[in-house]
Amino acid sequence: MSQADATKSDPIIVRLAELVCAFKAEQVTPLALKQARTCILDTIGVTLAGAEEPCTRILKETPGVADSPGKSLIMGTSRRTSALDATLVNGTASHALDFDDFSGVLGGHQSVPLVPLLFALAEERGATGRALITAYVVGVETEIRLARAVNFHHYDKGWHPTATLGIFGAVAAAAHLLQLGPQRTATALAIAASLASGLKANFGTMTKPLHIGQCGRNGLLAALLAERGFDASLQVMEHKQGFLNVFNGPGTFDAEKIFANWAAPLEIAADTIGLKQYPCCGSTHSAIFMMQELKREHGLRHDDVAGITLLPHGRRLKHTNTPRPQTSLEAKFSVQYVCARALKDGAVRLKDFEGEAHFDPAITRLLEITQALPHPEMLDDAEEQWGAEVIVALKDGRTVQRRIENLVGRGGAYPMSSDELWDKFSDCAERTLPREQVAPLFERLETLEGVSDIAQVTRLLEVSPLHTRPPEKIRLAPAGTEAAPETTWVP
Amino acid sequence: MSQADATKSDPIIVRLAELVCAFKAEQVTPLALKQARTCILDTIGVTLAGAEEPCTRILKETPGVADSPGKSLIMGTSRRTSALDATLVNGTASHALDFDDFSGVLGGHQSVPLVPLLFALAEERGATGRALITAYVVGVETEIRLARAVNFHHYDKGWHPTATLGIFGAVAAAAHLLQLGPQRTATALAIAASLASGLKANFGTMTKPLHIGQCGRNGLLAALLAERGFDASLQVMEHKQGFLNVFNGPGTFDAEKIFANWAAPLEIAADTIGLKQYPCCGSTHSAIFMMQELKREHGLRHDDVAGITLLPHGRRLKHTNTPRPQTSLEAKFSVQYVCARALKDGAVRLKDFEGEAHFDPAITRLLEITQALPHPEMLDDAEEQWGAEVIVALKDGRTVQRRIENLVGRGGAYPMSSDELWDKFSDCAERTLPREQVAPLFERLETLEGVSDIAQVTRLLEVSPLHTRPPEKIRLAPAGTEAAPETTWVP
Repeated sequence: MSQADATKSDPIIVRLAELVCAFKAEQVTPLALKQARTCILDTIGVTLAGAEEPCTRILKETPGVADSPGKSLIMGTSRRTSALDATLVNGTASHALDFDDFSGVLGGHQSVPLVPLLFALAEERGATGRALITAYVVGVETEIRLARAVNFHHYDKGWHPTATLGIFGAVAAAAHLLQLGPQRTATALAIAASLASGLKANFGTMTKPLHIGQCGRNGLLAALLAERGFDASLQVMEHKQGFLNVFNGPGTFDAEKIFANWAAPLEIAADTIGLKQYPCCGSTHSAIFMMQELKREHGLRHDDVAGITLLPHGRRLKHTNTPRPQTSLEAKFSVQYVCARALKDGAVRLKDFEGEAHFDPAITRLLEITQALPHPEMLDDAEEQWGAEVIVALKDGRTVQRRIENLVGRGGAYPMSSDELWDKFSDCAERTLPREQVAPLFERLETLEGVSDIAQVTRLLEVSPLHTRPPEKIRLAPAGTEAAPETTWVP
Repeated sequence: MSQADATKSDPIIVRLAELVCAFKAEQVTPLALKQARTCILDTIGVTLAGAEEPCTRILKETPGVADSPGKSLIMGTSRRTSALDATLVNGTASHALDFDDFSGVLGGHQSVPLVPLLFALAEERGATGRALITAYVVGVETEIRLARAVNFHHYDKGWHPTATLGIFGAVAAAAHLLQLGPQRTATALAIAASLASGLKANFGTMTKPLHIGQCGRNGLLAALLAERGFDASLQVMEHKQGFLNVFNGPGTFDAEKIFANWAAPLEIAADTIGLKQYPCCGSTHSAIFMMQELKREHGLRHDDVAGITLLPHGRRLKHTNTPRPQTSLEAKFSVQYVCARALKDGAVRLKDFEGEAHFDPAITRLLEITQALPHPEMLDDAEEQWGAEVIVALKDGRTVQRRIENLVGRGGAYPMSSDELWDKFSDCAERTLPREQVAPLFERLETLEGVSDIAQVTRLLEVSPLHTRPPEKIRLAPAGTEAAPETTWVP
């Protein structure tokens, strides 16, 4: 395994580039591989779900966007374009529903700056699945390591770290796939410092997912320019008027945290990375999870239920206490509704937030026998604030209950099973792909490291213009988010 | 003249959008028209000079850049592409030599974010010269007004205002040309707040002009997205995590300065706007100007000169005191060399900083009889620090001399004459265009307000692939700049 040659006296960007370029596929541990594969698969799923969202559609219709000839697929279409523009469009689609995975350290979403870019570039250059995964892992390492150096000041100040830090991950991933070498990788990272952008004030609008499309496109542009001999200042991070001082401010960062224990262990293998299992407010997820577990464990049928008591942590209930949702958006923020769905269907799906789904009579009956209260034992100022307990009384007199102390997304001690991944993936992918492509695509992504050319995957992401999509497409509000958080990060 | 309807309680971006949309061609005063025309003409000239610079060339060669079909010309070629990509490439070219006009209030260059974008968009949509000029004037008003609200804290912190504030001017100009109306203009401005980027740490590299290409492209993208119904937060400026607080920081801006005396008088007509007459360090310009005046006034011939004394303000001489320049870059920072050129040729041109030009024997003789000293009467801590005096002793015993107290670029009390504009323009344009196109282009730009379709101008900016350019192209270092300034803005 080659070691980086840079020393502490070298510019930050030079040291970082050395580490990125020295990273080898053999450093991807089995746990990291599993997690990377899962995150990539999940990102492709949510990208397909976002492919027809208004933000993506408007972008695709804008003159000069995705009109270039090229080999890279606009996912969910048969249109191919430059890697730059495919990254812009697919990147925006990937974050359109805010349903993608996240990192607590980043205070954002680690995969969306990388996966659309890597697929677009791998398709153009004919890369293997293994090369793509390795580039993804080093991209994640780069953006989260940088986050360790600048967060949470960076986040709290108002930057959107998925974009403003994600762009460095995007460059690292692209540079690794392109095998740019340390010098050009350093230059690419330095160019990117000047292209980083994205304000939290635009959360809750279409501009939030646009940040991601732009971040990926700009990161790739930086790599492509550096590949051709463009230049930039290698002191751009530590310079008095450079990234760390300008974005963060003097005294609010510790650059050495980028390098301390780099890749040991890998960030992608950490339990601070989670997946969003359900397309609704993140604060309802622990209660839904408990309801699903009860259903599975006891074979619950909604007709057999006499009463439901939901006891989320008080901080989770505050903005999700909506006993009778009247709109799809209210349904997303109703712990009562989403738990009734989980009980009846064993899942919470995208279509549950469309049309009149929240007025389903069987659901209405369940809402009538549901009560939600703040959990009496989960304290407001406790360190863990993402717990819930669910109690179901059955008509036969039995009572069953389950409790979880903390669940911020699925990962760490609670990874999603292959079946759960499939439930979410197929729900997402079927919004765009013909049904018969979805299972083969899932299988291919589950064994991505064995794919000899990424085109074997992307042909399954292609949709003929003749394919008819479900007629009724109603705009989904972003999934799993609360109102734009201002000081404390929530996924 | 329609008045803006927004009130002080409306979001900043809404108030700004109302003013932009309410702006009418009739508000462009004769002085503003003259200045706008001059600045646009000068920007086209420097863009042609920058069209073959390495940063522009690399960008054009990058896959996915300027490959889209479209109507907008890559200036100095016969290639047409989308307005987005033409803006990216021509915008980068326009700032490649750092030879473009500037605004002391902006702490940057007011025209380059606007002119490449406006030509690309006007060509695509078939706009008139008058519409383009009006859009340009409101774009300048927007970016400089915003600068009044945030500078010089914004500049001193490390942002590159030409890009980070220029993007709002770019949006305003595009929105005005597209006649988006107040609501969509407000949204476009709000999107742009999330796309603003550019760090001063990258000054002195190819990434600096790239800032401008990106700023124009991103501004246009914001306008095109808003045109199609994209959304963004209208509170993006004043939001706790919005542009003013995140880019500047609490207490470092005064948003009301955007609105106080908006367009009365117009920023474009202010004497804080200047042109760079010579392609060398800005600190030499007042001495060159005096030497040119002496030559003109007294019909000086270099053979008749017995001695030259240059007395620039001490702060100007510090980094331009280079009695015998050994390289082209040293020649740019040699007040002795550039004044010798002005005496011998009556001008200082791009070719004077190429190859062995600085070893020209006639120049060498002049350097031998030149002395440069800090002006004894111009104090180091004076308010005006851009003065110079030039004294020429003639072989016939006469002595002639001229003095100017302050000259930061040409403008205000010292506007460039049409002849001077032609000297610079033709020098720039002939680097890329066939000579026979240059004069017709100049004439067309001098009467731009009468052009009924901008295509009448752009066809003169087109170069057939068969046209042979001068064989020897040596990379020019950026013109007229000093080392990246850190705290005090200099043009």
